[in-house]
Amino acid sequence: MKLRKLVTFFVAVSVMMFSVVAYGADDSLKIKDIGSFYVGGHEIVLEGLPAYDAVFTEGGPVRKVDPNGSFETGQMYVQYVQLKNAKAKYPVLLWHGGGLTGNTWETKADGNPGWQMFFLKAGHNVYVSDAVERGRSSWSRYPEIYKSEPIFRTKKESWESFRIGPTYDDDPSKRISHPGVLFPAESFDQFMKSAVPRWITNNQATQEAYDQLVQKVGPAVIVVHSQSGAFGARAALNAPDKVKAVVLIEPSGAPDPAKENLALLKNIPHLYIWGDNVDKYPTWPKYYANVARYRDALIENGVPVTWIDLPKIGIKGNSHMLMMDKNSDQIAEIIQKWLESQNLMK
Amino acid sequence: MKLRKLVTFFVAVSVMMFSVVAYGADDSLKIKDIGSFYVGGHEIVLEGLPAYDAVFTEGGPVRKVDPNGSFETGQMYVQYVQLKNAKAKYPVLLWHGGGLTGNTWETKADGNPGWQMFFLKAGHNVYVSDAVERGRSSWSRYPEIYKSEPIFRTKKESWESFRIGPTYDDDPSKRISHPGVLFPAESFDQFMKSAVPRWITNNQATQEAYDQLVQKVGPAVIVVHSQSGAFGARAALNAPDKVKAVVLIEPSGAPDPAKENLALLKNIPHLYIWGDNVDKYPTWPKYYANVARYRDALIENGVPVTWIDLPKIGIKGNSHMLMMDKNSDQIAEIIQKWLESQNLMK
Repeated sequence: MKLRKLVTFFVAVSVMMFSVVAYGADDSLKIKDIGSFYVGGHEIVLEGLPAYDAVFTEGGPVRKVDPNGSFETGQMYVQYVQLKNAKAKYPVLLWHGGGLTGNTWETKADGNPGWQMFFLKAGHNVYVSDAVERGRSSWSRYPEIYKSEPIFRTKKESWESFRIGPTYDDDPSKRISHPGVLFPAESFDQFMKSAVPRWITNNQATQEAYDQLVQKVGPAVIVVHSQSGAFGARAALNAPDKVKAVVLIEPSGAPDPAKENLALLKNIPHLYIWGDNVDKYPTWPKYYANVARYRDALIENGVPVTWIDLPKIGIKGNSHMLMMDKNSDQIAEIIQKWLESQNLMK
Repeated sequence: MKLRKLVTFFVAVSVMMFSVVAYGADDSLKIKDIGSFYVGGHEIVLEGLPAYDAVFTEGGPVRKVDPNGSFETGQMYVQYVQLKNAKAKYPVLLWHGGGLTGNTWETKADGNPGWQMFFLKAGHNVYVSDAVERGRSSWSRYPEIYKSEPIFRTKKESWESFRIGPTYDDDPSKRISHPGVLFPAESFDQFMKSAVPRWITNNQATQEAYDQLVQKVGPAVIVVHSQSGAFGARAALNAPDKVKAVVLIEPSGAPDPAKENLALLKNIPHLYIWGDNVDKYPTWPKYYANVARYRDALIENGVPVTWIDLPKIGIKGNSHMLMMDKNSDQIAEIIQKWLESQNLMK
């Protein structure tokens, strides 16, 4: 069985898990360019809405606001850092999960470097995007343009559903973490400053923007987390010539394998990584099983798949926010070794 | 008169306006660190709101959403790029204007490099923030937390109030620009993808976050645009020991000089820059006069002030979005020369 070999490979990787990554004496990065752009989106015109009064500067005069007119909607913000001498064949695109922004990949909530810097130092050009409706991608008026209301995730829901611990309390000293959890619980409130509202009716616009991003900067390697798991899997189906690998960090969804031509993906290796404590929740085993069903269909169609349950290779305590956990470099190192094994470095 | 000398200085600068900035044969940047963090904000608890039904994944089951709980509000996102060998004594903080995000300072709407890269290449560590309620700083539920509704600026309002031209039309071929305007009108729709909603009731939280940023990374040079002009002016008053210079690009407001102890600022040079066509509008001359009143009070209190009306030194056609205009490097070069003249480089 193929999976057994891979487990052996990753046991080997885990043995080196505390090895220091050597970047040379001068650990500065030589950067060719830092920049950003928008993909996707279109113009939309609002008409017939009533005007209203507003004060724009505190103590200033009342001004009439006419909300009617034209706007851009559905666009997605992308920021890139390009190295002078990339060692990877293709750029890495980092796609964050629900209710968050590209900040997910930057400096971690505890102040230590995140995966953006890890993959830059490992020699990849890195593209970090904010999903449609989030962060610098902006958002649009509802219900006139977006067809639902925004959802604001509470601290309690985040603490629990991101598998940091079983019990949340507004008093940090009363919060209960999972034993040995690697999310820096003392930085949880800092982490929650990066949470943004989400809508449930913008999936199509988000997929279109991601697909445009792949067309614009591909061939590329896509690294997805949680909600963007389904977007990344579909992006590969939509552009099998442009997607060179997909790394899925705890994807919360996947396309319906019965409806897709998965043979299109036979040259696109997929790496799945799951953290700890999945079975302690009512919802996570369902997400996991749904994605595993897609994985099985990938394997049946000859797609190279690597599936890692971190606890099974001896790495225990990872939350849903693996890229912010204390061992985030260790997880990134597993991904890096896998990319090397897939011949994706120069 | 002091101003006359400065005009002479800037005529000299304008003579070199098409000179090429030499970065050496290898024009890559040596970067020590790229990262981000949040400043400001606090926890807020919502109670007593009704639960409602929502579908989180298209075709998925209906879930009950309880909007009550605790959230972070008022925080501000800051991203930094630190050079291996900075030539400037202090970092530059870039604060954007109303209805926009830190994207203002990155790649321009026409795809050319913006001021973030200019100041990095000139040897400054650069900190780009998203104001509270915008971009990656997130935003909060209204009217429960924010006390007003968001305002979405239309394309027409932006075209007109940013002084790109007198007449907007949804058909780009029918839009009328000011003669010789330097904003890349063909990139206007792309620019509008970077527009975000704004509120009118978050000034205090925004000022507090900016003040915390100054305390965290100062001493620093602050470069502000439009709405953030008033925040930058007050940040200097609130931390005269930490602010080493303020560069105000078309500030739309200023503190009331009668209420402030401006002598606190006597060691903090202020540079004001204004573009073209200010007098063609009903509102711009009012903003300009209000800020000029503050400038006069600064001068009376011995604060070193440089005030540049670009058309008066022969640079015509700049819009309100100077940092996105075609001659943005020329304007940045004026700022850089001024910073050098103020002994702010090593």
